[in-house]
Amino acid sequence: MKSGPIELGESKSLSPKAGVRRGVSILDFILRILAFIGTLGSAIAMATTNETLPFSTQFIRFRAEYDDLLTLTFFVAANGVVSAYLLFSLSISIFNIVRSNAQSSRILLVILDTAMLGLLTAGASAAAAIVYLAHNGNARANWFPICQQFNSFCERISGSLIGSFIGVAVLILLILLSAVALSRRK
Amino acid sequence: MKSGPIELGESKSLSPKAGVRRGVSILDFILRILAFIGTLGSAIAMATTNETLPFSTQFIRFRAEYDDLLTLTFFVAANGVVSAYLLFSLSISIFNIVRSNAQSSRILLVILDTAMLGLLTAGASAAAAIVYLAHNGNARANWFPICQQFNSFCERISGSLIGSFIGVAVLILLILLSAVALSRRK
Repeated sequence: MKSGPIELGESKSLSPKAGVRRGVSILDFILRILAFIGTLGSAIAMATTNETLPFSTQFIRFRAEYDDLLTLTFFVAANGVVSAYLLFSLSISIFNIVRSNAQSSRILLVILDTAMLGLLTAGASAAAAIVYLAHNGNARANWFPICQQFNSFCERISGSLIGSFIGVAVLILLILLSAVALSRRK
Repeated sequence: MKSGPIELGESKSLSPKAGVRRGVSILDFILRILAFIGTLGSAIAMATTNETLPFSTQFIRFRAEYDDLLTLTFFVAANGVVSAYLLFSLSISIFNIVRSNAQSSRILLVILDTAMLGLLTAGASAAAAIVYLAHNGNARANWFPICQQFNSFCERISGSLIGSFIGVAVLILLILLSAVALSRRK
């Protein structure tokens, strides 16, 4: 058993710094899955929501859907794009775990992550502004709150913001992790 | 003249990599000034805009100000905070130019830049959603466009978005620059 070190030399050749990088890569992978679930859930929750009021006139059915509001359509598109990107980025993340010394793939991830952070934040906060307006309206502009009529619709669109903001928080964390990993190159 | 290299050794001791880092730091400094001007301009343009219609009833003066809409107040606050941060970050940027090998100050800048990118994108895109609504309204929610009455107010708030989106683009660029600079450590 004492003669082990020579054979084990290969598999234990990770330096402490490389170990940190590999740990960061694994954390990166887990966070990406979390963000993927959050953004995909947001997109699906928003896209499938609709409410038809139990009364109607002869010509009009009172029905609310997400694509009545352009901003909510953008929200669904942004979440869809970001979740597709996160799924794709998992493969690069696995590559980073296997080859913990890889540099250019990390830079590629930082660039794409930052772009996706911009897109997702834009979608989430624009939708939040509209959801706020749906809840409270604006007396000065004569915009009335629509949540008084479309109650469950409003709850659903408010809830679907959560996954998206989790995605934003995780993407910020991912960029910081990548910055630290890049600076720890040997 | 041939004996020069020894004396010049000190001042020319920059390796090519250090030269790249210094160039990146100077570009970083210039971009920060650009983003500072953009966000400060946006905040001022939005905060000083108001329009009083030339007619009024006995009780009501028709007057539009940015703080009638909560989202535009958030826009002004976000732009103010980010421009204050950018002014502060200039000092760190100068430090990076002088000491091109500094590592932790760069990581600090990436962390703060990313947080500020999130804040500024949120403010700008939420304001854009509201400005779109002010221009076009939404027939399904019975929200009427207010730009028909408040014409110059609308032009002003639309214009003030530009500086803010320039700020977003520059911050994304700054994060990418920092990532590249961090990876180029010797």
